[in-house]
Amino acid sequence: MGNEMNILLEKAEVLIEALPYIRRFNRKIIIIKYGGSAMIDEELKQNVIKDVSLLKLVGFKPIIVHGGGKEINSWLSKVGIESKFVNGLRVTNEETMEVAEMVLNKVNKDLVGLIEANGINAVGISGKDGRLLQVEKKYSDGADIGLVGEITKVNPKILFDLLEKDFLPVICPLGMDENYKTYNINADDVACAVAKAMSAEKLAFLSDIEGVYKYADDPSSLISELHITEAKKLIEEGYIKGGMLPKLNNCIDAIKKGVNRVHILDGRIAHCLLLEIFTNKGIGTAILADQEEKYFKES
Amino acid sequence: MGNEMNILLEKAEVLIEALPYIRRFNRKIIIIKYGGSAMIDEELKQNVIKDVSLLKLVGFKPIIVHGGGKEINSWLSKVGIESKFVNGLRVTNEETMEVAEMVLNKVNKDLVGLIEANGINAVGISGKDGRLLQVEKKYSDGADIGLVGEITKVNPKILFDLLEKDFLPVICPLGMDENYKTYNINADDVACAVAKAMSAEKLAFLSDIEGVYKYADDPSSLISELHITEAKKLIEEGYIKGGMLPKLNNCIDAIKKGVNRVHILDGRIAHCLLLEIFTNKGIGTAILADQEEKYFKES
Amino acid sequence: MGNEMNILLEKAEVLIEALPYIRRFNRKIIIIKYGGSAMIDEELKQNVIKDVSLLKLVGFKPIIVHGGGKEINSWLSKVGIESKFVNGLRVTNEETMEVAEMVLNKVNKDLVGLIEANGINAVGISGKDGRLLQVEKKYSDGADIGLVGEITKVNPKILFDLLEKDFLPVICPLGMDENYKTYNINADDVACAVAKAMSAEKLAFLSDIEGVYKYADDPSSLISELHITEAKKLIEEGYIKGGMLPKLNNCIDAIKKGVNRVHILDGRIAHCLLLEIFTNKGIGTAILADQEEKYFKES
Amino acid sequence: MGNEMNILLEKAEVLIEALPYIRRFNRKIIIIKYGGSAMIDEELKQNVIKDVSLLKLVGFKPIIVHGGGKEINSWLSKVGIESKFVNGLRVTNEETMEVAEMVLNKVNKDLVGLIEANGINAVGISGKDGRLLQVEKKYSDGADIGLVGEITKVNPKILFDLLEKDFLPVICPLGMDENYKTYNINADDVACAVAKAMSAEKLAFLSDIEGVYKYADDPSSLISELHITEAKKLIEEGYIKGGMLPKLNNCIDAIKKGVNRVHILDGRIAHCLLLEIFTNKGIGTAILADQEEKYFKES
Amino acid sequence: MGNEMNILLEKAEVLIEALPYIRRFNRKIIIIKYGGSAMIDEELKQNVIKDVSLLKLVGFKPIIVHGGGKEINSWLSKVGIESKFVNGLRVTNEETMEVAEMVLNKVNKDLVGLIEANGINAVGISGKDGRLLQVEKKYSDGADIGLVGEITKVNPKILFDLLEKDFLPVICPLGMDENYKTYNINADDVACAVAKAMSAEKLAFLSDIEGVYKYADDPSSLISELHITEAKKLIEEGYIKGGMLPKLNNCIDAIKKGVNRVHILDGRIAHCLLLEIFTNKGIGTAILADQEEKYFKES
Amino acid sequence: MGNEMNILLEKAEVLIEALPYIRRFNRKIIIIKYGGSAMIDEELKQNVIKDVSLLKLVGFKPIIVHGGGKEINSWLSKVGIESKFVNGLRVTNEETMEVAEMVLNKVNKDLVGLIEANGINAVGISGKDGRLLQVEKKYSDGADIGLVGEITKVNPKILFDLLEKDFLPVICPLGMDENYKTYNINADDVACAVAKAMSAEKLAFLSDIEGVYKYADDPSSLISELHITEAKKLIEEGYIKGGMLPKLNNCIDAIKKGVNRVHILDGRIAHCLLLEIFTNKGIGTAILADQEEKYFKES
Repeated sequence: MGNEMNILLEKAEVLIEALPYIRRFNRKIIIIKYGGSAMIDEELKQNVIKDVSLLKLVGFKPIIVHGGGKEINSWLSKVGIESKFVNGLRVTNEETMEVAEMVLNKVNKDLVGLIEANGINAVGISGKDGRLLQVEKKYSDGADIGLVGEITKVNPKILFDLLEKDFLPVICPLGMDENYKTYNINADDVACAVAKAMSAEKLAFLSDIEGVYKYADDPSSLISELHITEAKKLIEEGYIKGGMLPKLNNCIDAIKKGVNRVHILDGRIAHCLLLEIFTNKGIGTAILADQEEKYFKES
Repeated sequence: MGNEMNILLEKAEVLIEALPYIRRFNRKIIIIKYGGSAMIDEELKQNVIKDVSLLKLVGFKPIIVHGGGKEINSWLSKVGIESKFVNGLRVTNEETMEVAEMVLNKVNKDLVGLIEANGINAVGISGKDGRLLQVEKKYSDGADIGLVGEITKVNPKILFDLLEKDFLPVICPLGMDENYKTYNINADDVACAVAKAMSAEKLAFLSDIEGVYKYADDPSSLISELHITEAKKLIEEGYIKGGMLPKLNNCIDAIKKGVNRVHILDGRIAHCLLLEIFTNKGIGTAILADQEEKYFKES
Repeated sequence: MGNEMNILLEKAEVLIEALPYIRRFNRKIIIIKYGGSAMIDEELKQNVIKDVSLLKLVGFKPIIVHGGGKEINSWLSKVGIESKFVNGLRVTNEETMEVAEMVLNKVNKDLVGLIEANGINAVGISGKDGRLLQVEKKYSDGADIGLVGEITKVNPKILFDLLEKDFLPVICPLGMDENYKTYNINADDVACAVAKAMSAEKLAFLSDIEGVYKYADDPSSLISELHITEAKKLIEEGYIKGGMLPKLNNCIDAIKKGVNRVHILDGRIAHCLLLEIFTNKGIGTAILADQEEKYFKES
Repeated sequence: MGNEMNILLEKAEVLIEALPYIRRFNRKIIIIKYGGSAMIDEELKQNVIKDVSLLKLVGFKPIIVHGGGKEINSWLSKVGIESKFVNGLRVTNEETMEVAEMVLNKVNKDLVGLIEANGINAVGISGKDGRLLQVEKKYSDGADIGLVGEITKVNPKILFDLLEKDFLPVICPLGMDENYKTYNINADDVACAVAKAMSAEKLAFLSDIEGVYKYADDPSSLISELHITEAKKLIEEGYIKGGMLPKLNNCIDAIKKGVNRVHILDGRIAHCLLLEIFTNKGIGTAILADQEEKYFKES
Repeated sequence: MGNEMNILLEKAEVLIEALPYIRRFNRKIIIIKYGGSAMIDEELKQNVIKDVSLLKLVGFKPIIVHGGGKEINSWLSKVGIESKFVNGLRVTNEETMEVAEMVLNKVNKDLVGLIEANGINAVGISGKDGRLLQVEKKYSDGADIGLVGEITKVNPKILFDLLEKDFLPVICPLGMDENYKTYNINADDVACAVAKAMSAEKLAFLSDIEGVYKYADDPSSLISELHITEAKKLIEEGYIKGGMLPKLNNCIDAIKKGVNRVHILDGRIAHCLLLEIFTNKGIGTAILADQEEKYFKES
Repeated sequence: MGNEMNILLEKAEVLIEALPYIRRFNRKIIIIKYGGSAMIDEELKQNVIKDVSLLKLVGFKPIIVHGGGKEINSWLSKVGIESKFVNGLRVTNEETMEVAEMVLNKVNKDLVGLIEANGINAVGISGKDGRLLQVEKKYSDGADIGLVGEITKVNPKILFDLLEKDFLPVICPLGMDENYKTYNINADDVACAVAKAMSAEKLAFLSDIEGVYKYADDPSSLISELHITEAKKLIEEGYIKGGMLPKLNNCIDAIKKGVNRVHILDGRIAHCLLLEIFTNKGIGTAILADQEEKYFKES
């Protein structure tokens, strides 16, 4: 029994170690942009759901924002519609929009079901519910890419109401313009806009990269923490490329608008969310305000 | 100007006539099962949305429950899945369920968008959100018809919460069993179960018939009001047939469980909902408890 | 039945037309100065009561302020007291004050009874209750006109409390000075002071004129909408005369102090209140802030 | 200074003596039927107002019910209407009713003014406000005595609302029948009905007698405390006569319906209300339930 | 880094394992009787404080009840008072009581300080505060043992108030009789009485034994779970002796009065409280209602 | 009986005289620094408790802050520790601190018991509970005097919470530094700091002097009221000496930080607190802001 007891004691110690982190984020709003591998790999998905459920149960206020790119492609091809992209944005005609809305809502309710299975009350909404997200048509370098929306206004009442009633909101990236027409929105933009509108404590992106690299192809150049002035400099000097560019700009903007910390996490690591929040180990890249103190060095 | 003023005065009189009805249903819960032609015809759809919006604005608490049969069929055929029915219930394998969930949630959010366009805050949920509807597998005369669910428990907390926060809930008929697997549910059953669980004041079915006929093929035999004892007798004596049979049984059950009045309305008539609530004109058939007084005679 | 159904449909359409107006004034405070013919003619009186009851029921927050000039005169003569006026203000000695207080409170409770008969809970108060209206002695061009009060302070707590508890407050124009002596107050002044103290959405005067005329004797010169700068100019240029002069000054002051719109309505037109609020037809004259957009042209 | 200090100390002792009584009636509802000499003599009136104000300030919840008999008579004669009584009830035709309503509401608002002058927020209502008192026509031994009402229902919501908002309600004895017609009511009946409907802790009648005498004309036969069984026996044995008979029956009924103690106090004694509540000295007669312990002996 | 990451992942797994337990005891009241070695050994003390702080932070509602036997003895000897016991109860004269009250309150505030140091707001009270514990003099087999109290009434308002305001209450075992004289009370009795009065979910005794042994001297006869019928049988058959006898009777009584589970834990094991609540490992002995299912076998 | 009645009437008059004072301090926070003779003399103590209980019952919000100097000395000598003072501050080593904490908490709970005996719910706390008082080590003219604390922060949440729940807080002067180490604090400082942090209406010191004398040894030079500018001048000119110097500086500071009035009362006069609050007789010295009007002249 001695060995068994030792294992138990170690477990108790882990729980006790979590104390200061639980205290620190008590009742704080945490926006989680959920996407990439963590959404496709069944085990990673279960991990994320469990992580978020734990955050909710110990008193934090997590909100999930998700995309659904790969499932949308798969259904478009099932019904014989070709997927087209311009500058990484899906060209969205009426037919495509219809399929996208169906798939995104289905993915949304699947996540709700998984969270409910962990004993947490979740509600799946889009940006249409409670007029959460108002948009206008977005152009890509002047090109018409159809029903792709740029967020013009966030009405967070529905989110505050659901949190007050102890639900975990799950959001899919759809919105309506002033004529109540439905638009597709980039999920990163939604996560950022919601985080800003709610003055969230934290905004975490689960993505398929380790974090921000100084040199795009050199994993050893991963940056643990970035003040926004440094981030802007990296951008100006041309280090940041591809999909990371709009994401990092989003992060900088979120920090400026009052979000405390933004994290780019490697969603391929099991429980990356818990590790980021409950340990001193830096996972991925944290973007912070210039006056915030850094904890880690570049690895 | 005289004539114009007369028209205005008549309008004022109509509003004044509504006073006793507004007073009577103030803060009362009204469940509306929305389906049939009223969901397909674009003008009828706009009418229903406007009616429900008005009910909300003048202080009632409407909740919409909708189906999506025809759109599901159309999408199933698009992706090459055959629609099969046993005793009027859709045989629902995994693939069919997936399409059904996508379509129902799309229809759900479309309705939300239309209601928002009338200036009312709506939230679209399925029976999975907040674990609203718990089900078990349903068999049709012993036959396995797949993922079709029988409601075993309603958790109306999410609906009371949304009403308290002044939202109009829109529900699509999906639920989960005790293993959190998703099932398709008959929308009439959902409307009935929700009405009972919330002790609704009124439950109204918008359908494609005028109401209950004594003789199925004889429109002149429409019954305006039915005490549940009479309804049960009509059933026993074999007058009620087809889809009306389960619907009427549902109505009788709702009345027994505390719903005040159940209405079978002709959704093909514009504003049938407003007419039923704001006038003394009987539209369709009302089912009532034995001790309730009748207002109309059989026409 | 066809024709009957058409009439019903028209009624439904009228209700639906009211939707945007109900939405716009939802939970807004509307002060109604009730006087003139609309208070004497029994049918007009019933109309006003029904209009206000409807406003209350559909979610607005109406408050009635009334006078009682003609009934006071009649009772004064019954007890052998002569009615005297200086510049339109009643010279009020102790005896007159006593009769005036009796009559005003009786009129007040009569209105309460009529509103209760429409199923709305009303409470009749004077400016003495809850120390609603504090006054000081008013002089008319230096002349002592007795117990006529100028409002020095409004304590609207009692009104907010009654609205919170879902009552419709009915106010008669009496107040007390700092020695708790009772004074008669001009009812227009009370309506204005209350509207300003509560930042009411709307202040409507039911009077015995069509509205503001540019040329006092020319009904064709009725002005539908007046920005306050225009109103001030009309006054300066001497167009406005008699009882309209203090009323219009009151209106201008109310707009300046935060009331959104002030209306001078023709109380001799049935349902003028409903017509003003629920239709696009301009009834009487609307006074509005300079930055507010006009809807109508001068007729 | 020594003497002055002694006086101060004695004052402090008096306040300290009040401690247990203040504790005992904290937040308790006390209905005070105010009438007779205490309403006519200016000094007694000031005393009553001060007593009630003190009760309110130290945390009790007093409610005043008043009559106005003598002022009504005086005004009826001013306008040339004869006062007629049948079995002590005023025969009330339409004209009389009109004058009575005016006078009662005036008396009501006068009391409100006096209470406000003591720094307490008061609201004067009749039984018409908030539909507080519903009545039906009362007959006196079969004789039609006009608009005299028998209370059939009390809706105490308005009183609980006013108490919650920290107002002192002052009630005049008018009510409406089911056709919303106004009736005169006996003020003792109103006090009793309100005390019962609110389960008041105490009901105190300020009247012009010392209390209940065993022998009507013998002041030495004053009874300090009466269990209701004793009271009923006194009535059966014919000791109780005149106006005391309905009053005592009212008291017995109030005790049966849950009022804790009823007091018949001598309103001609200054501060009789305070003395009854804050001292061990029995003033007047207390009526109590059979199981309640008596404190005093018959004097 | 691989190894480091493995350790982190294991930590994450431990947190995830806690999910169902956190969910199960969310917002539940847990009474912890704190005493014995866990109160003397500085490291064990820190462990208990951390355990309780964690329970508080993850949403449970822990309340600590503590004794102070050893410190009282030590201070009594410092001031030259001899400690005397009869049947395990301290004979408590006035002088002893004074020292006991000083020491218990000091111990109480020391615990408050330690909890505050963990970032949790605590309030230290005795049974005198808010009249929490009312007692009468207790006799030990008829012998007068001085100021030792038997609890006659618990007024848990102060505890519910402190929990509502998010404090962690720490209670020392003192109470007052009906003359407001202070008494010493057995801390086990206090824990039991409070658990019953609040219908606590759980009552846990931290003591210096492994749990209940069937054979007092045989550690291998430790019983993991006991239905109360079995417990009563063990007592009747004479297996239970010494201090365990009143403790076990207390446990049985608590279960009967609505406490869900009572635990006798070995306070000498680090984090025994966490281990009991967050793992499936049975620590000590659980007493449960007869209808409750057992989880463990006797070891 | 006449004479008896006169006495009763005089008592009623005393209660009525209290009306304006009760109204003025209704729901106001009053901090009472309790110490000196009033804490030692058993009758004076009972008087203070009764005074404070009355203040609580009539709707004020009193808070008691007490010291315990003499009892600490007595217990220190019992356990053989010498009392040492530097500049009037107790030199507090670990052993002394331990005894001081025991004694102060005992005195605290004794007061709680006495207040409870008057039917008021009290809670005894130190500055450690709810982290009410944060301190840092204080030096006396550079000399290390051990565990004596200077208040650096007040967290009044616990006091507002207890008042909201209708308790009377009793505070003993202990606090913790940032390492959660316990310190002794001067009780006058605590009273001042709490009064400032809560923006108290009044702060009253019960001390063993008549008030502030202009000439320290001349009782005839007692000052009834002092504006803070006058007080500062007296200090600058060297009139104020000894223990009065820090006390007066404290008073000046409290007025500057928003406390309305500070009183130095003679605690040796029975009911000095009631006399100060409920009469126009100036007891002791009142310190007031420069713009406040004085009521009394120097005697």
